[in-house]
Amino acid sequence: MSLDEDLEEAAAAGVGLPAGLGLRRARAWLSRAVEPGTIDFWRYVEDVGPVEAVRRLRSGRAPERIRSLVGARAEQDATLADLTRAERCGARLVVPEDDEWPALPLHALTLAVSAEPREPANQSDRTKAPVPPLALWVRGPARLDELVDRSVAIVGSRASTAYGEHVAAELGHQLGERAWTVVSGGAFGIDAAAHRGALAAGAPTLAVLACGVDRPYPAAHGALFHRIAETGLLVSEWPPGCAPLRHRFLVRNRLIAALTRGTVVVEAAARSGAQATARRAQDLGRQVLVVPGPVTSAMSVGCHELLRDENLQAVLVTSAAQVVQAVGRIGDDLAPPVVGPTSLRDGLGDLAARVLDACPVRAGASPERLAAIAGCDVLEVLRVLPVLELADLVEWTGTGWRVAPPSGRKGGPGAAA
Amino acid sequence: MSLDEDLEEAAAAGVGLPAGLGLRRARAWLSRAVEPGTIDFWRYVEDVGPVEAVRRLRSGRAPERIRSLVGARAEQDATLADLTRAERCGARLVVPEDDEWPALPLHALTLAVSAEPREPANQSDRTKAPVPPLALWVRGPARLDELVDRSVAIVGSRASTAYGEHVAAELGHQLGERAWTVVSGGAFGIDAAAHRGALAAGAPTLAVLACGVDRPYPAAHGALFHRIAETGLLVSEWPPGCAPLRHRFLVRNRLIAALTRGTVVVEAAARSGAQATARRAQDLGRQVLVVPGPVTSAMSVGCHELLRDENLQAVLVTSAAQVVQAVGRIGDDLAPPVVGPTSLRDGLGDLAARVLDACPVRAGASPERLAAIAGCDVLEVLRVLPVLELADLVEWTGTGWRVAPPSGRKGGPGAAA
Repeated sequence: MSLDEDLEEAAAAGVGLPAGLGLRRARAWLSRAVEPGTIDFWRYVEDVGPVEAVRRLRSGRAPERIRSLVGARAEQDATLADLTRAERCGARLVVPEDDEWPALPLHALTLAVSAEPREPANQSDRTKAPVPPLALWVRGPARLDELVDRSVAIVGSRASTAYGEHVAAELGHQLGERAWTVVSGGAFGIDAAAHRGALAAGAPTLAVLACGVDRPYPAAHGALFHRIAETGLLVSEWPPGCAPLRHRFLVRNRLIAALTRGTVVVEAAARSGAQATARRAQDLGRQVLVVPGPVTSAMSVGCHELLRDENLQAVLVTSAAQVVQAVGRIGDDLAPPVVGPTSLRDGLGDLAARVLDACPVRAGASPERLAAIAGCDVLEVLRVLPVLELADLVEWTGTGWRVAPPSGRKGGPGAAA
Repeated sequence: MSLDEDLEEAAAAGVGLPAGLGLRRARAWLSRAVEPGTIDFWRYVEDVGPVEAVRRLRSGRAPERIRSLVGARAEQDATLADLTRAERCGARLVVPEDDEWPALPLHALTLAVSAEPREPANQSDRTKAPVPPLALWVRGPARLDELVDRSVAIVGSRASTAYGEHVAAELGHQLGERAWTVVSGGAFGIDAAAHRGALAAGAPTLAVLACGVDRPYPAAHGALFHRIAETGLLVSEWPPGCAPLRHRFLVRNRLIAALTRGTVVVEAAARSGAQATARRAQDLGRQVLVVPGPVTSAMSVGCHELLRDENLQAVLVTSAAQVVQAVGRIGDDLAPPVVGPTSLRDGLGDLAARVLDACPVRAGASPERLAAIAGCDVLEVLRVLPVLELADLVEWTGTGWRVAPPSGRKGGPGAAA
C-alpha cells in the first residue's frame, strides 16, 4: 500500500488502537520530514496527531509556518525504505503509542516544552530546545523502557586521559554489576570507556546516537557498537542512513539527560560540551554528578567548574556506590519504597550496608572484590557475609556472592523481622 | 628579683599599663603550669587576671579545682630560664596585653569558650577545647598580628603524594606572591611543601608548633624552620624546650584554624586528622577550602569526603586565586570595602579581572606567567595589561608586572572614574 492509503486506513481506525503500520509509517515520515528538536513541528504533531499531521502536510493543508519547515520533503516518501533498512540491521521504530516508549523519563521534556513561548522567535535555539522526540529508531534486543528505568548517563571528554578512561570504565563496570544501565553517546574517550566497562560486567548498555543506527559513528567503534547492539540498544531520532551532522550531537544530548536519572561527568575541559550537558540535565530535574580529578589536569577543569558553580546542585562522586546513592534518592521519589528489604537494610550496621552495596546483582563476586569495592578488610567482609545471608540479603552463586533477588527475600525468614 | 617580688610590683602597678616584666613572667609561668587548652584554667586566669592568678596559686589561695591542675608545679619557677632560653634563639613571649597579640583572630576562640558549659565534666575534651592561648612563644622578626592579618592555613597529610606536594607548594607560592601569609604546622608532607612554596616566593610564613620554638620538630626540618624564622615566625603555646607530645598536635590545631581566615585541605586520607582540623575551622566560623584529587588516590579520599559532607560548607578550590576569592569574601565582612579600587574592579571584564588577580604584589611577573596563572593566552594578557596600567591597577617593575600599591592608585587618574 502507498503511504497515503495506509494513512487513510489509520485515520479511519481512530486513536487508541495498537500502533499499526499506518501510524508507524506516519511517525517514520515525520522523523525524516523535519530535524528533530523543532518545537513548533512537535507541537503541531501533538495537536493534530501524527497521522493527520502527515496527511495535512502531504495535501498542503497544514499551516504555512509548518509547511515551510518541511518544504519539498512533503512530497517525498522514504518510509518503507527506512523501515526495511532498519529491519535489515535488527532495528525497529519505537513510537510514543508503543508500550515500550519510555513515557515517564521523557515526560520531563514534555513538561519543559510546555514552558517554551509560542512565538518561534522567542523559543530556545533548536539544538538546545527541550522538546520530546517524535519517534526513536532502536537497534538491539532490549526493551527500551525497561533498559532506561534504572539508568545513569556517563558523559565526558573525547580527549580523555588514562585516568578519566579508567574511572569511566570502573563506574560503568560497577553500575553494570548493580543492574544499572549505562547510557552514553558513542564517542571516543569517556563514552566508549563507560560502555566497555559495563559490557565487561556482562551488563547491557545504551548508546544514544546522532546518526542512523545502521551506520554508527565513529566508524572505528564498529565493533563496540556491534557489542552494544547484541545485548543493549543503539538509539537515534534520525532514520537509518542519516549522517552525524555537527549540530545533531547537541540535539541528541537532551535525550541522554532525559532518559536517565542522573548524569555523571567524568572528565571535561573548561567551557566544554560536557558542562552544557550537565546544565541541561539539571534543567530537566536530573541529578548532576561530577567526578573530580587532579587540579593539574586540563581535562578536570570543567568538572571542578561544575562543582564550584553555586547555581548548579552538582554532587561530587568518587564511586558507583555514591552514584547509586544519589540517583536512588530520586528513584524513591518516583516509586514507593519497598518496605520489607528497606527496614531490613535500616537495621544493618555501616559496614554490613557497605558490603551489601558492593554485591553485584548478576554474577557473584569474591570476598576480595567485595572488600575492594566496599573499601574495607577481607576479614571484615567474611565476618559480615553470614549475617547478610541469614537475612536473605545476599546469596552464594557457587562462584561468588551476589544480592539475593527480592522474591527470594520476601519468603525468607528475614522478612518477618 | 624573684618571681614573687616581680609579681608584687606588677600587682601594685595595676592593670592597663604596658606589659612589664612581672606580667610577662606571670604569663610565662602560666604557660608552663598547666597544659594549654584547659578551659577551667584559662577561665580562672581570665577572672582574676594573670598576675593575681599566679600569686594565689603560689600562695595556695586558689580554688582547690585549679590548684589540682597545677599540682607540685606551683612551687617551681622556670620563668627567667625560659625567657632567657627564648631570647638566646631569637624568640620572645607575646602576651594578650601586647599590641602585637592577634586579638581579632583569636576572638573566635573567646566566643567559642563562652559557649562551653561550666561543669568540667561536660566540657570538650581538652585536646579539642576551643580555648584561647594564655601566651604565645614566637621566634622570628615578623610582627604576629600583622603576619596573620591576611593568612590562610594549608593543611594535609604527612604521607602526601607528589601531586599533593606539588599543589601545596604551588598554592603556597601563589599566596605568597599575593601577600597572603601561609600558616601551617611543621610536619613532613603538605605542611613543609606549603612553607617551601611561600618561601620560594620570598614571602614570610608562619609555622604553629606543638613543642618549644627552640627545638622544632621534626629535627629533619631544621633548615626549613631556620628559614621560616629568618623572615616569618615559629609560634608555640609551649615554653622553650618542651617536647612534641602526641596530644599537643591536636591542641595546637585549633590555633592554626583560629589564626587564619580559612583552612585549605590539600590531601587527606579517609577519617584523618586533616578532616578534624577542617571541621574545627568551620566551627570557628572559618572558611573550609578543599583541593580535590584523583578518585583513585587514597590521599584524596578525605578531601572528597569533606566536599561530599552536606553539614560542612566546604568549597572546592583548584588555585590560589580561588582561595583568595573565598577568604577575601569573609575579609569583606570584617573590613569595610575600599570603594575606589572596588568600583574600578567592578568595571573590569572577566578577562581583565583574571589577569589582575594573577598579578603578584611584590616581585613582578612576566606576561607568560600571568597567562599561565589566569588560564588564558599570552596575547590576551598583552591586550589587557595596558588597560589595567591606565587604570593604575598594575605597574611595571622593570622586570615584570605587579599590582600597583593602593597609595599610587588613589592619586592616579583612574580613581576619578
